[in-house]
Amino acid sequence: MQRVTVLRLGHRIKRDQRITTHVALTARALGVEEIVFTGEKDDILISSINRVVEKWGGKFKIRYSNSWKEIISNAKSQGDYIVHLTMYGANLPEVLDEIKENFKRRNLLVIVGGAKVPAEIYRLADINVAITNQPHSEVAALALFLRDLIGNSVYNQKFPDAKITIHPSRAGKAAKKN
Amino acid sequence: MQRVTVLRLGHRIKRDQRITTHVALTARALGVEEIVFTGEKDDILISSINRVVEKWGGKFKIRYSNSWKEIISNAKSQGDYIVHLTMYGANLPEVLDEIKENFKRRNLLVIVGGAKVPAEIYRLADINVAITNQPHSEVAALALFLRDLIGNSVYNQKFPDAKITIHPSRAGKAAKKN
Repeated sequence: MQRVTVLRLGHRIKRDQRITTHVALTARALGVEEIVFTGEKDDILISSINRVVEKWGGKFKIRYSNSWKEIISNAKSQGDYIVHLTMYGANLPEVLDEIKENFKRRNLLVIVGGAKVPAEIYRLADINVAITNQPHSEVAALALFLRDLIGNSVYNQKFPDAKITIHPSRAGKAAKKN
Repeated sequence: MQRVTVLRLGHRIKRDQRITTHVALTARALGVEEIVFTGEKDDILISSINRVVEKWGGKFKIRYSNSWKEIISNAKSQGDYIVHLTMYGANLPEVLDEIKENFKRRNLLVIVGGAKVPAEIYRLADINVAITNQPHSEVAALALFLRDLIGNSVYNQKFPDAKITIHPSRAGKAAKKN
């Protein structure tokens, strides 16, 4: 299995902090190794995600970049396959096999917007992919994309060195510190 | 196919407006007919969701209730199956068949938190369900739950009377007004 990196565009501290946090935590929970965000540099976002990683384990990384052009151009030069999630794209079920085929041998850079996504992003992406062509959420779009890309095993990620693990229970709360 | 209603607990206007908006839009995009939220009454949230419905079609409804107890007790008296999405619950893949079995003949009430979920919710739910037992997002949890419950056809919802529809394209933007 190849590696998935998420690029979150145009982060705004005041407006997007919780949404970007949800994007990052969803990426982590579903096996992504790194998220890069552009827009406004946000140290609170970075430290809050790092605190989750420290507590809940795994190797997930978050970092800021001031240039999405550089991130995309680096990914391209490494041969990565660039997927842009947008409600204007081709429907996921219709292009899933093609994406899976590329994912067999190439790492993926998955781009999620962002208030105003520059037109160039649509062009730089190898494929623009929609989840339903309806307005909803970059958090949901990323979750559904990763789930369909990876299949049921997306739910079986390992998080080594966790300080907290949960003992699943249909009755609910039963957290346990290691 | 039975009906799904979402109950979003403990909405706070200042902190949750965007997250609850994403929960509602995700529910709508994936075929849910109604969302009820508790916590703080939020007319801006309601009107922004209603504007999306007016523009993008379909019959999705959003409403406020000041009592989750009443919503759950009404659902129970109608024979609905109550699913509470929480990271402390049983893992989705292990209980999915059981939920599907119930969904064949019963409507679902899907509960998503909320800052502090009252202990009573865990007890009132027929089942507490986790997506990975890791901290992430109620938006992602709802999206993944609905996708696995309904299967691939979750992406083929119909939205009658839309003023805008998108012509899907792998090259990206090509929106068209009806």
